[in-house]
Amino acid sequence: AVHGARKMEDYGRFLALLVSALLVGFVAVILSLVWVFHYREGLSWDGGAGEFNWHPVLIITGFVFIQGIAIIVYRLPWTWKCSKLLMKFIHAGLNTIAMILAIVSLVAVFEYHNASNIPNMYSLHSWIGLAAVIFYSLQLFLGFAVFLLPFAPVPLRRAVMPIHVYSGLTIFATVIATALMGITEKLIFALKDPAYSTSPPEGTFVNCLGLLLVIFGALILWMASRPHWKRPPEENAKALLPIGGTPEGTEAESTMTDRSHADKADLRINTDAARKQNLKPDEAAQRSTM
Amino acid sequence: AVHGARKMEDYGRFLALLVSALLVGFVAVILSLVWVFHYREGLSWDGGAGEFNWHPVLIITGFVFIQGIAIIVYRLPWTWKCSKLLMKFIHAGLNTIAMILAIVSLVAVFEYHNASNIPNMYSLHSWIGLAAVIFYSLQLFLGFAVFLLPFAPVPLRRAVMPIHVYSGLTIFATVIATALMGITEKLIFALKDPAYSTSPPEGTFVNCLGLLLVIFGALILWMASRPHWKRPPEENAKALLPIGGTPEGTEAESTMTDRSHADKADLRINTDAARKQNLKPDEAAQRSTM
Repeated sequence: AVHGARKMEDYGRFLALLVSALLVGFVAVILSLVWVFHYREGLSWDGGAGEFNWHPVLIITGFVFIQGIAIIVYRLPWTWKCSKLLMKFIHAGLNTIAMILAIVSLVAVFEYHNASNIPNMYSLHSWIGLAAVIFYSLQLFLGFAVFLLPFAPVPLRRAVMPIHVYSGLTIFATVIATALMGITEKLIFALKDPAYSTSPPEGTFVNCLGLLLVIFGALILWMASRPHWKRPPEENAKALLPIGGTPEGTEAESTMTDRSHADKADLRINTDAARKQNLKPDEAAQRSTM
Repeated sequence: AVHGARKMEDYGRFLALLVSALLVGFVAVILSLVWVFHYREGLSWDGGAGEFNWHPVLIITGFVFIQGIAIIVYRLPWTWKCSKLLMKFIHAGLNTIAMILAIVSLVAVFEYHNASNIPNMYSLHSWIGLAAVIFYSLQLFLGFAVFLLPFAPVPLRRAVMPIHVYSGLTIFATVIATALMGITEKLIFALKDPAYSTSPPEGTFVNCLGLLLVIFGALILWMASRPHWKRPPEENAKALLPIGGTPEGTEAESTMTDRSHADKADLRINTDAARKQNLKPDEAAQRSTM
């Protein structure tokens, strides 16, 4: 019973963090819209400032908010009763949406630059941002080939998984850093009279938006890096079966309280397996989540 | 023998990454000096541009390079024969140096602003940068109180350790993001004729410096987040003894090859302890590295 109570407390803590992250991310998206509609020229697709404004809105919506959700989607406890394959599709699908929005946002800024005779790709923001989009697309393509298609053997998946997780989190952090550079550029260029340095309302408003992006990133990285909030490994053996071979039990109802017993069993299986195979416990855990 | 060979290969991989990180970080420091001496007004302490220039140089040297080394200092295999307490002093000492350099670099920029009647603290760079210095100082103070002073009980250390690691890595990433914003600001303000947008040599040069900071950060985060490159836990029991109670054996010579046997023993102890205490393997590993 004490163990169950601790589990529920931990579940509550996860929920509180999740709600905070969703709230912070959602408010950031709203603030980006307020920025472009209240302080700037709104949205349009005509080569003018309104086309540029799609850039921050789509980056914050897709490349920050949706990517953040895609990262933690495996951690939502109520999805643990779903098949791993379904969750992989949701993870890949959200990342695909984020990639499309990021690419459209790049088109918007290139078209705006070209229409206004502003050079492309001169700034550090553009260099790191373009690199982030390229690495993100590569990551999505490789993740699809290795983890979603049924061809990659388990040893390959095992070798690629830590790289996939590390790359995903590093690209996510880099995207937020790039957004902060973009905000800095835009405020310096757009705020002339009164200048950014005199702290006009728009400057303070968009600084707050930048702060929210950092807080959102920090919350997502915390949730994504807690080992005890990982999707439990017992479902994963099923995910490794060929498509169609998933046992009926996968879709069965499962509550947080039910899990507490399953977790103890997992632990014993994990540690025994680890000793037999001379793996460290971390490696054994890693191995069983692919 | 196969196990030993794999160990040596892994050791070689760690060394290659370490050398890359040191090289990239060192080149970034050199480039920051070339920037201020070749393209800018050099260094001075007179309220002029030369005083401002201490800001990027000290941030890149202290808050990026030295902080990065402080983060991975426990991972250097040849330090595993040293006492944990000594390594804690080195970790805290490097972070203290980084904090002092960061604070001096803030003084430089505030004095420069005041002498030139430029407002302080209006930009997103200044907001996030000041927050990073404050959180970094708090982290150093709390780390000292909990992990270096002998008063904190083991359960407290156990609870704080994952937060300490997460905060450290998140602050480090935030510092690099802030440096990228600072580079963006400075290049826009300083490059007027020819403008930053025309890609003058200084712009391209400092963009490369910014790229190096991202690569340095990515290398440090990879090394810091590989579980198998952690300082092995068997030395840690000794570190938890009161000061002066460290057994003689701690300082004994120990090579990578010797370690391979010790590791297997660790694994058995770890997993048995985990089962007994109903902890997950990750938690048990965490617990034994404090």
